[in-house]
Amino acid sequence: MLDTLGIALIGCGTVGGGVADILLRHKDRLASRSGRPIALRRVVVRDTSKLRDSAIPKELISTDHAAAIHDPTVHVVVELIGGTTTAKKVVLDALAAGKHVVTANKALLADAGHELFEAARKAERCVCFEAAVAGGVPIIRALGESLAANQVTAIQGILNGTSNFILTAMAERGMSYAVALAEAQKLGYAEADPTLDVDGSDAAHKLAVLAQIAFGVAARPHEIQRQGIDTLDAMDIRFADELGYTIKLLAEAWTSGEGGRRKAEGGKDETDSAFRLPPSALNWVALHVAPVLLRHTDLLAQVRGAYNAILVHGDIVGETLYQGPGAGRGPTASSVVADIIDIAVGRAQRTFAAAQLWSTANKGFAIEPAERVRSRFYLRLLVADKPGVLADVTRILADEEISISSVVQHEAAESGGSPVPLVIVTHYAETGRFKTALKKINALATVAAPAVFFSMGD
Amino acid sequence: MLDTLGIALIGCGTVGGGVADILLRHKDRLASRSGRPIALRRVVVRDTSKLRDSAIPKELISTDHAAAIHDPTVHVVVELIGGTTTAKKVVLDALAAGKHVVTANKALLADAGHELFEAARKAERCVCFEAAVAGGVPIIRALGESLAANQVTAIQGILNGTSNFILTAMAERGMSYAVALAEAQKLGYAEADPTLDVDGSDAAHKLAVLAQIAFGVAARPHEIQRQGIDTLDAMDIRFADELGYTIKLLAEAWTSGEGGRRKAEGGKDETDSAFRLPPSALNWVALHVAPVLLRHTDLLAQVRGAYNAILVHGDIVGETLYQGPGAGRGPTASSVVADIIDIAVGRAQRTFAAAQLWSTANKGFAIEPAERVRSRFYLRLLVADKPGVLADVTRILADEEISISSVVQHEAAESGGSPVPLVIVTHYAETGRFKTALKKINALATVAAPAVFFSMGD
Repeated sequence: MLDTLGIALIGCGTVGGGVADILLRHKDRLASRSGRPIALRRVVVRDTSKLRDSAIPKELISTDHAAAIHDPTVHVVVELIGGTTTAKKVVLDALAAGKHVVTANKALLADAGHELFEAARKAERCVCFEAAVAGGVPIIRALGESLAANQVTAIQGILNGTSNFILTAMAERGMSYAVALAEAQKLGYAEADPTLDVDGSDAAHKLAVLAQIAFGVAARPHEIQRQGIDTLDAMDIRFADELGYTIKLLAEAWTSGEGGRRKAEGGKDETDSAFRLPPSALNWVALHVAPVLLRHTDLLAQVRGAYNAILVHGDIVGETLYQGPGAGRGPTASSVVADIIDIAVGRAQRTFAAAQLWSTANKGFAIEPAERVRSRFYLRLLVADKPGVLADVTRILADEEISISSVVQHEAAESGGSPVPLVIVTHYAETGRFKTALKKINALATVAAPAVFFSMGD
Repeated sequence: MLDTLGIALIGCGTVGGGVADILLRHKDRLASRSGRPIALRRVVVRDTSKLRDSAIPKELISTDHAAAIHDPTVHVVVELIGGTTTAKKVVLDALAAGKHVVTANKALLADAGHELFEAARKAERCVCFEAAVAGGVPIIRALGESLAANQVTAIQGILNGTSNFILTAMAERGMSYAVALAEAQKLGYAEADPTLDVDGSDAAHKLAVLAQIAFGVAARPHEIQRQGIDTLDAMDIRFADELGYTIKLLAEAWTSGEGGRRKAEGGKDETDSAFRLPPSALNWVALHVAPVLLRHTDLLAQVRGAYNAILVHGDIVGETLYQGPGAGRGPTASSVVADIIDIAVGRAQRTFAAAQLWSTANKGFAIEPAERVRSRFYLRLLVADKPGVLADVTRILADEEISISSVVQHEAAESGGSPVPLVIVTHYAETGRFKTALKKINALATVAAPAVFFSMGD
């Protein structure tokens, strides 16, 4: 049996406490899975009094980062403090001290991935981060290892459990956004300041990490186009439902693989594109986070509450789906410990060396604005209830060669001259041309408020 | 860069052809993911004339197993001929010759896993088999690596695409079993002799493989209790639907972890059991393949057509789901090539050594008959339309302390004395006690045909 692998935990909140519990309670299990003992050597926190009642032996606990990092019996430093300042220093110091790093910090990776990974390569150590995206869902291993034969051509992910919880409550229980948010906060699914969750920022960070693995692109989170659910009108959830669709906040990556089209002609049977497309057909990827209309029967439409799920399209395998709890003590700790076991077994080091993530090795993908993606669109207008409006709107769409799939306009019940909703669903169109049409539509005198629009999942 | 990894393909049908295509067409991709070139060196088939029009260079093709296996430029032998006779010899010869093995052969693993893995350990080579269960769904890596921090406490899998295609057609289009089977055969989802698919044998083979990884048990497929869909009556699909349930053929493993109960008290929120249960609470596992009633909103109930999906419950992570195409050229070849890349990177060798699969290392799980599992049950009787029948049946259930959740008996439309269906859904009961009650019910004079029953997913 190999030598004991020593672990230092930096940060011991919800997730860190879970990791400590597993390391302390399941020593036999971890040793048998790793082929060697794994021992918790150090736990570093800001305030040691908070761990007074924990099962962690007192002598392991301190407030001293450097002592933990430089402890010669520590081989792996687990960074769970979050943020991008102290956390970055901890990771760089640990690598410089010759320690492997496990982190759940998506913001740090999205922000400083290149710097951290170069430091790791220089130190000949590895950085593991399964817990950084989608908690208990093993999407990092899926993209990096299980699907390694494929070029990923599309990713659609429900990566923010808070937003999905709120959308589920709005759709299934008819709540307004504000009421659903309040319930999410009460149940601990949303923080007091939910901004980063509901405006799409958190999902954009996670998408940036996935895009690095799948496409080799270093997308800065602020460069990823995003729209959250914080401005979503319950009316659009109702109209979507009437049309047979569910609205989900998706983090998406679309490539030129299928002409940038959301679905290949003919729907689902689009596997074997690896055997059809020349490799050179894949040269750009568009990334965005936005509410998207999914058919009620779509796999991702079924994902309810705080769950996360990621649909990955590979050019050889076709569509695969990964689903599970997106956050929380158990799920996130499970992924952190899986990384520790991978280091203990020696897999992680091999993967790290082979994958060359956040390196200068250009994998040939350019990041394109989402304008290039071909999609169907849901367009909801508030229009004056008088003749000619529909004719004007549809003429503008026709001028951009956008044809219409369906129209919903309900009989105005005593509108008394106030604007009425008009919903139009289009056939496939290039996002750029659709937006051109949108500008002209918003300029119509009969259109009372800026048009609301979403992509459709098919 | 490391030396070229040489591959011999033994068998070149649908899947083998897909593997050859990937190795030949995507050399750059595979080299960049592996950190070394991967080269197809040999293709062995029974009849070389069948590959006359393929893109495989003529000089690689032969009918000579031994020459391929002993070729010093070959490092990995990919066994894709199926069956358990020649295939077994090929695998053992390859290991003896110092070659790593990749196989998609679930029957061979379930049948001779111990012998093959001991031979591999002796030869210090590895056997990889991601493609053996659920085609393109990376369930082997999920169980063995991603969830390594967990003790798996339950598995529920849709592992046979043929059965799921037929069930979907019966449920959604009201087809009889015979008509749905004929359509599956026409579309290539079912073979001319569909027995192994529809009677649960294929799913039992796959479950045996998963149970080895998750519980360390060497279940012989013929020891796994199984019931297929071949005897399913469309009437039960309709009754299930009326009650809010979908019938799916599931391969299931239940442990003593939650008292053998299908769902923990209170439904879904059963994570963190790792922090509650003593490790010793897990000591038995029950395996079976059977049609199960799942709520329409359950994740597995949504899996349609020929797709496969596996729900894994881990004591730390909670529930995670893996879904994708269960068979076919692209998906299966994708998993085979992922294994080849894992060997090229050096991960597979580490995993193989650490996992000690099919070894004598006892992991502490005994296989129990499914009688120990606690479940709710759907019970459908054909009974005489006269007074006292319901009283007799419910009295028998009460005597076994089985309480009733709901009853459906429709008004008999001119039954003219012929038996009418009576459907009873029970609360949780131990399978053994339920079966005791069943015997007594079948003995009632008013019960016209042997009772039909299924477990409920919750």
